[in-house]
This record gives sequence, structure tokens and C-alpha cells, in this order.
Amino acid sequence: MTDTPIQSEQTAVTAAASAAYRNDRAHVVHSWSAQASLDPVVVAGGSGSRFWDESGRTWLDFSSQLVNVNLGHQHPKLVAAIQAQAERLCTLAPYHANEATAEAARLIAQAAPGDLDKVFFTSGGAEAVENAVRVARHHTGRVKVLSAYRSYHGATAGAISLTGDPRRWGAEPGMPGTVKFWGPYAYRSAFHSDSEAQECERALAHLADVLMVEGPHTVAAIVLESVVGGNGVLVPPDGYLRGVRELCDRHGIVMVADEVMVGFGRCGEWFAIDRWGVVPDLITFAKGVNCGYVPLGGVIISERIAQTFAHRVFPGGLTYSGHPLACAAAVACLNVYREEGLIERVRRLGEELVRPALEQLKSRHPSIGEVRGLGMFWALELVRDPASREPLVPYNATGADNRPMAEFAAACKDRGLWPFVHFNRVHIAPPLNISQADLRTGLDIIDEALNVADRYLVQ
Amino acid sequence: MTDTPIQSEQTAVTAAASAAYRNDRAHVVHSWSAQASLDPVVVAGGSGSRFWDESGRTWLDFSSQLVNVNLGHQHPKLVAAIQAQAERLCTLAPYHANEATAEAARLIAQAAPGDLDKVFFTSGGAEAVENAVRVARHHTGRVKVLSAYRSYHGATAGAISLTGDPRRWGAEPGMPGTVKFWGPYAYRSAFHSDSEAQECERALAHLADVLMVEGPHTVAAIVLESVVGGNGVLVPPDGYLRGVRELCDRHGIVMVADEVMVGFGRCGEWFAIDRWGVVPDLITFAKGVNCGYVPLGGVIISERIAQTFAHRVFPGGLTYSGHPLACAAAVACLNVYREEGLIERVRRLGEELVRPALEQLKSRHPSIGEVRGLGMFWALELVRDPASREPLVPYNATGADNRPMAEFAAACKDRGLWPFVHFNRVHIAPPLNISQADLRTGLDIIDEALNVADRYLVQ
Repeated sequence: MTDTPIQSEQTAVTAAASAAYRNDRAHVVHSWSAQASLDPVVVAGGSGSRFWDESGRTWLDFSSQLVNVNLGHQHPKLVAAIQAQAERLCTLAPYHANEATAEAARLIAQAAPGDLDKVFFTSGGAEAVENAVRVARHHTGRVKVLSAYRSYHGATAGAISLTGDPRRWGAEPGMPGTVKFWGPYAYRSAFHSDSEAQECERALAHLADVLMVEGPHTVAAIVLESVVGGNGVLVPPDGYLRGVRELCDRHGIVMVADEVMVGFGRCGEWFAIDRWGVVPDLITFAKGVNCGYVPLGGVIISERIAQTFAHRVFPGGLTYSGHPLACAAAVACLNVYREEGLIERVRRLGEELVRPALEQLKSRHPSIGEVRGLGMFWALELVRDPASREPLVPYNATGADNRPMAEFAAACKDRGLWPFVHFNRVHIAPPLNISQADLRTGLDIIDEALNVADRYLVQ
Repeated sequence: MTDTPIQSEQTAVTAAASAAYRNDRAHVVHSWSAQASLDPVVVAGGSGSRFWDESGRTWLDFSSQLVNVNLGHQHPKLVAAIQAQAERLCTLAPYHANEATAEAARLIAQAAPGDLDKVFFTSGGAEAVENAVRVARHHTGRVKVLSAYRSYHGATAGAISLTGDPRRWGAEPGMPGTVKFWGPYAYRSAFHSDSEAQECERALAHLADVLMVEGPHTVAAIVLESVVGGNGVLVPPDGYLRGVRELCDRHGIVMVADEVMVGFGRCGEWFAIDRWGVVPDLITFAKGVNCGYVPLGGVIISERIAQTFAHRVFPGGLTYSGHPLACAAAVACLNVYREEGLIERVRRLGEELVRPALEQLKSRHPSIGEVRGLGMFWALELVRDPASREPLVPYNATGADNRPMAEFAAACKDRGLWPFVHFNRVHIAPPLNISQADLRTGLDIIDEALNVADRYLVQ
């Protein structure tokens, strides 16, 4: 009775936040976490490059959530497209056709290189990889699939077996027929190379050797991220993907470019592989196709390989394949990329603004061992010692071992920036349409937070 | 210039339909099909128990698409909830919390039996099964997983390896550690039983034998559909699921009830297993949780098992876990089930209207070998010979071998009914809120179409 309306409103918001928090802690199991240690932010909303909790505390999103909101939060054209399609037709069995699904497939085929003209839709990236493997195995009649260490391909039994990072460990023994190779990574070369060109040459020689000893005629597919994402923004040296293409051609192996994280503009191209003019046989996608506003993923299939399933049953499926609501969001999203010239903007801003800014940070912070990336996708690799390149925290560190990175992340969050932090790296992956001012603000916060990392340098 | 407005509008609609059809055929790969033979209906909209193509041709939906639109097409409360949440917050990384996700988890936990209080969200049923296996393996420290022949659990590498129908064949060799057993199916007993009670007893003895020879201490989980769905609406005899529960308890095995198709009211219970008062350790769900209006699935985990992941990392995840838009649709959907008393309606209508009507059909059509089901989930098993029980078409028939069933399905569609037809069966799975008049209309059409099946009886 004595409350003013404003106080009542605040009380209501706080009570709701607290109910959401309580229900979350009581009933929600979160990904890749020990549940008792979690203290999640209850996110109430977002707009553009920012999101906020129910008390109004706001963060600048330099990780695009999980590198998926390429157009930022709550893009009005995507929201409108979802609302319009919801009014029209939310869901449909995958044996039917409908306008949203057909148009999304047309736009994706139009964006894809070469003769990659057919789309099998899934609800996310892991299922996309699962189905790419299925297509490659049936097309070739072979079983084995090669993938790289330091990679992530998803968490279902097939996709996690291809994954080359610690998240695979808990899922072994996985799908049979998977073989790992080492990809190029000049800063921590598996091949003792001393230049990008030598790393390229030696990584290709290694892959050819692995094929030789595995028997290239037993290999259905080579699956690799065009630019390795969660495992370090590893940009392949010029010539590497072309060399992989040639090995695949020589041995009748299906080349699968996993573009779940890097497709749809993240690297300043429709697909990251376009930067090198290489045409794979299959592309897996998710995330950026519709910013994850509605779960969607898929495989883009070359006409040549699609012919395998013209008169033979395509041996995969899911209830939500070609989901109209998800596809309507994709149509809107792909049109925004094109109409707003975002692909070109990302390419230009990456080189003209982000690269020089990060190189400047490196000159000020000895904890930065390497700066690498392209477009709106960059990594700072943090070290305890620039000379030995010892990582700031050990591989797959947790708890006290991970303290330097945890403190770095906390320093960012305290200053209103939500970073993407993994192992000894900070990745910079803001929305593709972030303003230049916000981009500079975020980089300034990272600059300050790096003082935390510098304190852990070996004396 | 000479067109009337009405003519222009019709021309526009036809052109759009035709563009959607052309784009679909040019660019969309459909599930489980030889692509060249497809001639999909371009669906333009739906409402309640009906959907239509762009020429206005309408079908009564007796398959609820893929047994997912439990509340029919375009339920206004679900559409409104999706539109409102789209306005507020479409997507969020799974390490955050938000109100829609927390509330969906609370409602699901409330609906689930026993201490099944924690939810790990996925984007569909296959991922739900993948994560149930992951939970069971980590909880028990064991690898092997048992599942039944005549089952479907999804199409990712783990889920398809558990699947006991021909869709698995194209994905082998699958995930290691999977073992199949035979479930109860009195009409075609694997155990030569002559009653439901004997089938129950023998099926449990068989499962105990399989555990004995596999080594029960090596088995992490038994995964089974509470009522087998796509493989025949196989309702387990009373006592079977209780017996499986006892075997699991005896050997420390995790009991996983796959309720992707049968959960959320389809069988006249919140979860089909509730009919027998049995509490499993994990429940997998998707489909009916939000009618598939936005892709969503998950695993409901008992408090006891969830404790395993309190201080140990839960070793699974996906970008769209706990997706706010999908969860907002779930909140609306679960509230409709409750507010409209649909669970009770389904239970009552199944026994009072559907069962007697189908028994009448059986008395008129000798091609019906057996009627079975419950709630809004029924099967007519069609035979060439009621005495020998020879199926109307062979197992996994295609092409000419499948002609009788294809003609039956066509007869239904010609009369405005969209049936669910699989192997030698027609399943009856309309929306749970279908009117009694529509239910009778659909059953009358099936009555007429069964004359087609009767023509194939052995003389």
C-alpha cells in the first residue's frame, strides 16, 4: 500500500528473477559443467551486441553467445520473420514441402560454392556432421573417416568421435572407423616447422602419410573445420585446404568442410573455405544460418553426390528436418547478410580495425603469445613465457590450475564485457554487425583485463 | 491490366506454390527417401486437426505429422507464446539461465514421476537418447546398453545403434557396446507364448537370460520405449515394465524410458509408463513436449543420478540446449494439456470411442489381424491371412512388394485423410484435442480404405 509504482515494479522483477534462478538451479542441467558449482546469469533480454540480466546489468557480447548470434540479439527482421511464420505454419513432417524450407534451401545453395546445391536440414551442428558422415559412407561404400586433433564437431556419438578435443574423452569408445591426424598450427607446430609455408607443406605430407598407412581406398571422408573454431581460431596456411582437396580427389575421398561455427560471414566470406577458392563435397552448417534464433543445421551436398540418393534411399532423417519456423528465420537471416553487405563489412573491418588493434595489444602485453584470425573471428593465445610459448594455463585446466584465465574472464565481465575464453585463449567473436564504437569499447576492456594475465608471466 | 483482383491473387498463389515445389525438388533432401521418386505435397497451412496445400486441398491429420502435433496445427496459445517469446528473447547460450527454460524444466519435472526432477534439454529425440546413454555410462561406469528389436530411438550414431528396425542397417557398424533383446509382442511372439500373461513372463525371462550371458555388471542401461511407437504400437503386457524395473534394480542398471513419441498425453498419461506406476531412472522426450512447434527434446534425470554430476562435469552439451523459444512453446503446451484436461480426455476417448470403433472395423475387415493401442495411439495390423497371420506386405517392403499398403494409403489420402502407415500397419495417432466428429470421420474413411486391403487376402 505504501509502495510507489516504481518500487512495486522493481520488486516484481526481482521476484521473477529469483524464481527463474531457483527453478534453474532446481531443474536445469547445464552443458559441460559440474552442476553444483554453477551460478548462472539469468538473462532477461538482449538487443544488438548487448544482453542483460533481470536487474538490468548489461554486457557487451564478444562471444556472440556460442558464436551463433551473427546478427546480434533480437534482430528485428529475424524476430518479425519468426512471428510471421509462427502465424502461418510452425511445424511440418519432413516428407512434406513448404515455402519457407524450399526458399531457405535455395538461398543456402545460392551462397554455397560450386555445385553444392542440395540441403539436408537438421536441428543443429552435431546432427549435420552425423549426416555428412552418413552421406560420405554411402556414397563411397567405405567406412573410415579422418578428422583432426584440436577440432570440435559436436556431441552425438558420431560427431564426438570425430572431435579432437577433451570433450571426446567422456564418450569413448566412440563410433568405429575414426582416425585422427594433426592439422597445421604454426605457433605450436606438430611438424617442427619454422614458417607458415613449411607448416603447410609438412601438414599435407603428414596427412598423405596417414592416408598411406590407413589405406586411402578405405577412407570415406576427411572432415575438417575450414578455420578451426573452439580449438583456437586456427587459420590454415594458404595452400592447405587446396592440398586436402587434391588428396581427396586423388583417392576418391569425400571432403567435408565443417562450417558450423565459421560459415555465414564469420570469416568475411559466405563460407570460410571460399577464402581459398576451394570447393568441398559437403558443407556442414548451423549457428550463423539463422543465428540460432530457432534450432537449425544441415549438410549442403554436391549435385554429384546427391545423385547417389536419387534412386537409393537417403538413410537418415529426423522429425524436425526442414522445420518451417527455423527455415523462415534462415531466409530472413540470409537476406540480411546480403542486403546489408555484412560479409564484405566483416572482411574489411577484420583487416582494417581488428587486426591492427590486436597487434597493438600484443605490443603492450607480453602475455599475448600470438594474435591470429580473420573477419570477426580472432584469438589471443596467452602464455606464461613468450620465449618458451608455455601456455598461461595447462591444456584442459580446471580449478586452481585455470585461475589465470578465470581471473581474466572475471575482469572482462566486471567491466561489462562477455568474453569467449577457452583453455589459454580469448577468442574475439562479436556479432558481425557490431558498431565500430562497440568494437573499440570491447577491445579496450580486453586491454585492461590483460593486465591480469600479464601478472602471471614467468619472471 | 485486364485481370480482376481475384484472378491476380489466385495466379500469385499458384505461382508461389509452384516456386516452392520447384525449389524443394531442386534443393531439399528429404528424410529416409529415394529423392527422385518424391512428389511432396506443398503444405501452405494448418489448423487444429487439418492441414492443406496451396490449392486449398485439405487433409484430416490422423498421424499428427510424425506423432508430434499433439495439440494439432497452429494452436493459438502456442503460436501466441512463440510470438511473445520471440519479441523478448529468442536464443541464449546454454551456460546462462532464463525464465522460459527454467519454467519449462519445472513443469516437466512436475509432470514426471518419482524423483525425476532434473532436465537436460536437447533439440530433439535422438540427442535426448544420446545424452541418456551418456548419463547412464558415466553414472554406472559401465559401457554396454541393451535395447529392443522392433524399436526406434533416433538417427544419430548412438541412437541409431540402439534402434531395432531397418533404419539401423545403413548406419552399421554403429556405436560399440549395444546389445539387442526381444520385447513382448504377443501377436507375433518371439517366445511361442499363447497369452499376454505368458508373453510377459517369457519376455522377462528372456531379458534376464540376456543379462546373464552379457554379464549384468557390464550393463549401464536398458533403453526401451514404454509403448513401442513406430514399430507397431506395442503395448507391453501388465507386469512387463515392472519386471524390467526389478531387473535394473537387482543389477544396478539405469532404466531409460524412451517417451519421445508416447510421452505428454499420447497414451492418456503424462508419460506412458505412468500407466503401470513404474518409475524409470531417466525419461527421454521430444515431440509432444511442445508439439514440435520449435525443435526441443531432452532427458529427465532422477535426483539420485543427477548427484553424479554435482561435482563432476556433465560430459555433454549443445549450442541450443535449453533454447528459450523452444522452452516458451513447451511452457504453453504443458499448460494447455493441464488446463484443458487433455490427458484424462485421451484416456477416456481411447477406451470409450476408439477401441470399440476399431474392434467393429476388425469384425468387418478380415485383413485386420489385430487391433491394439491405448489413448490416442492405435495400430491395425494388416494381414493376408488371419489364420497364419502372414503380414499384408513383407518386413521392410518397398516398391511392388509394398503395393497393398501404398494403395491403402492412397485410398485414405484420396478421401481427405492423412494416415500413418508403416510396414503392414496403419497407426491411428490424431491430435489429442481432435473433435469426436472428426475422429469418427477419419475412422469412417479408414473403414472404406480397408476394402483395398481386404482385396489382397489370400483366398
